Amino acid sequence: MPPDLESNVAERLSPEDLLEAWHLLIPEDRLESFRALSRPEAEDLFLSLGARDQGELLRALPPPERRSWMRLLAPDDCADLIQEIPHHEREELLSLLDDTTRKEVNGLLAYAEDDAGGLMNPRFVRVRPEMTVDESITYLRRQAPEVAGAMHYAYVLDPEQRLRGVVSFRKLLAATPDQRVSEVMQTDLIKVPEKMDQEDLSRLFSTYRLGAIPVVDESGHMKGIVTLDDIVDVVREEATEDIQKIGGTAPIDAPYLRISIVDMIKKRAGWLAALFIGETLTATAMGYFEAEIARAVVLALFVPLVISSGGNSGSQATTLVIRAMALGEVRLRDWWRVVRREVVSGLGLGFILAFIGMGRILLWQALFHTYGAHYALVALTVAASLVGVVLWGTVVGSMLPFLLRRLGFDPASSSAPFVATLVDVTGLIIYFTTAKLVLSGALL
Amino acid sequence: MPPDLESNVAERLSPEDLLEAWHLLIPEDRLESFRALSRPEAEDLFLSLGARDQGELLRALPPPERRSWMRLLAPDDCADLIQEIPHHEREELLSLLDDTTRKEVNGLLAYAEDDAGGLMNPRFVRVRPEMTVDESITYLRRQAPEVAGAMHYAYVLDPEQRLRGVVSFRKLLAATPDQRVSEVMQTDLIKVPEKMDQEDLSRLFSTYRLGAIPVVDESGHMKGIVTLDDIVDVVREEATEDIQKIGGTAPIDAPYLRISIVDMIKKRAGWLAALFIGETLTATAMGYFEAEIARAVVLALFVPLVISSGGNSGSQATTLVIRAMALGEVRLRDWWRVVRREVVSGLGLGFILAFIGMGRILLWQALFHTYGAHYALVALTVAASLVGVVLWGTVVGSMLPFLLRRLGFDPASSSAPFVATLVDVTGLIIYFTTAKLVLSGALL
Repeated sequence: MPPDLESNVAERLSPEDLLEAWHLLIPEDRLESFRALSRPEAEDLFLSLGARDQGELLRALPPPERRSWMRLLAPDDCADLIQEIPHHEREELLSLLDDTTRKEVNGLLAYAEDDAGGLMNPRFVRVRPEMTVDESITYLRRQAPEVAGAMHYAYVLDPEQRLRGVVSFRKLLAATPDQRVSEVMQTDLIKVPEKMDQEDLSRLFSTYRLGAIPVVDESGHMKGIVTLDDIVDVVREEATEDIQKIGGTAPIDAPYLRISIVDMIKKRAGWLAALFIGETLTATAMGYFEAEIARAVVLALFVPLVISSGGNSGSQATTLVIRAMALGEVRLRDWWRVVRREVVSGLGLGFILAFIGMGRILLWQALFHTYGAHYALVALTVAASLVGVVLWGTVVGSMLPFLLRRLGFDPASSSAPFVATLVDVTGLIIYFTTAKLVLSGALL
Repeated sequence: MPPDLESNVAERLSPEDLLEAWHLLIPEDRLESFRALSRPEAEDLFLSLGARDQGELLRALPPPERRSWMRLLAPDDCADLIQEIPHHEREELLSLLDDTTRKEVNGLLAYAEDDAGGLMNPRFVRVRPEMTVDESITYLRRQAPEVAGAMHYAYVLDPEQRLRGVVSFRKLLAATPDQRVSEVMQTDLIKVPEKMDQEDLSRLFSTYRLGAIPVVDESGHMKGIVTLDDIVDVVREEATEDIQKIGGTAPIDAPYLRISIVDMIKKRAGWLAALFIGETLTATAMGYFEAEIARAVVLALFVPLVISSGGNSGSQATTLVIRAMALGEVRLRDWWRVVRREVVSGLGLGFILAFIGMGRILLWQALFHTYGAHYALVALTVAASLVGVVLWGTVVGSMLPFLLRRLGFDPASSSAPFVATLVDVTGLIIYFTTAKLVLSGALL
């Protein structure tokens, strides 16, 4: 936290600092510091914690105290909390809720955690189209205390609970008191089905710059609302997952310092072992060229240089395409446009590296006479292979996310290490084949 | 967009579809489709576009039409738009604004684009503490039409414009009409200085689950508010930048399909060339072991396998740490905890790969007699180097982001390719040194 901020929040230090430091404390210290707070401070802290932390804290408290904390949570946050605790303790926590809330929470638990139904809050402010603005404000005054904090819209439902429109509290306040709600409400509104995936939902929030989106069932009955504050968490979570996949790890659903080392190794070993097994093909590939290497050891010196260039350019291309897909900038049907761009980029980048590589070999030869009589041919081999390998890496790296998505996998699984491994094997073949063509009769 | 959604928004097809397809259209088509919309539809579309697209569209319109579109924008959005257009055209657009707005926009342009001052909207709803709830609602009715859509809070200012508290419209509606604003307002509120960086700001939004944060100057005068919808864009932008850096590219500030190929090559060539030059050290390193390779060509076969394992494990470690830092889960002072974890993980992962690698060599030897008389010693060399290289890659990969942050650079610059390149050179040294120790007297 920057120093400017600290001076600004200095007057209310302890609960905020506790929240900041929460992930660094051991569970016993958490409980102790939590108990040291006044009730209102403790409530603020509890509500600011994520569902996982709320669950851990609740389980650390003695059972008689739990009920009053569960009551603080809106039904969607209750459901999130319950999904974070072990199955055999769920019933007990559910039994602490009043009947209405328990029914709502059970309803939410039936949805997948990452679709609109699982994210929505089933409590929202409802008004009737035929009410006057003044009547609706009086009516709102009665509903307002029951709905969660982030809500700023009233939804206009007909007697069958079908969604007819929406009006913000701000607009109600600005309207003349005797207008009808139906006159001030907005009727062309974005609504989503319960099954919509959270990633599509978050794109919708950002495309239309919305504060809340109502969720409706197939017959248009309103089921709840998803608010922007839930979506910020989604955007962050999805980016974290993508970044971890790009780095070649299975997504780690917990903060780095809190996951156990055994789990950490498990999450990483799978991909690493798979990549390693893929990479053993390089030993096989090089085995085929063992005779060439024996005759011209100088060739072996440039193997890491040539194949890593393919890996690096492929990893650039793949991360750019993965992110562009996640942001909706590139779709499956754009693959041909992407190929054309990447062929040009790959050739451009390949020639730049070939130029540098050739210069490096000629310079070293002039200075140290390192590379023998056929140094010019060796330089040509390296330069020509670089163009081929970089072009190949770029095209493979950019196309792999398309292939993965087409097959129904997450394009982000096309990690930098995955692409590098794929390109290493083919890079070797490109390099040694080029060598055979250029050097036959001279070194080979 | 999934089919469920399309059926839901089918009744208002054209402007939404246009928005979806915007990035795929050529500029002429954009202008033409935009002009085909009714005025209210066109306004919705214009307001949904990002600042860059708004700017491009505006510049495509004939000058006399521009004023009425500029007027639609809140001052912070105006400032964003102006930052997206070439310098020499800015004055002309600014001159289209009325005096008050122009002053506000000029004020905002003085802030850096990515601090709180640059993100904030200088228009907000203000009330006085001594007003009754009823008076404040009447007062709000007059202010409401002037402030932007995402605003749901009234800020309580004293006569010197210092921020005393905040009250949501919802809470005002729920209060009894003759209570004082000072009785219902919340006084312990989070506020930030104008200079706060957007990344810290976004963490604050998510830690405290806020909808809006007021920005104050050094004497506590309120300057504006930052709202959650601006922060969603920030979170997305920062993740995109991090992902591009992790992939080894300079951040690309435009959608993938819209940046020119020349700019694309420029953004990628810098890092790629730097990595390539670093990687030429592998040729130097291998040069030192040329004699060993000539005597035991079998050693060269495993070079790509061994060094890529270091690169892959390093790239896992670095992306995990970069993301944990960006989320605030890991701070500079945690470096020692991270080292300890990564040493254990690195050893664990190293032994797993060593086991697989040894098995692979022994199996191939049994099946094809590929690796000569000293195959067992070769297998031992590969296995022992794998433990060393993976451990080394993991530790280097996890520490590099700390080092970069400590030196004032962005930890995300510790890209997967960067770590792989660093580890390749040292990996070669580990491998050939191990080989000398294990094989001396036998093969070497």
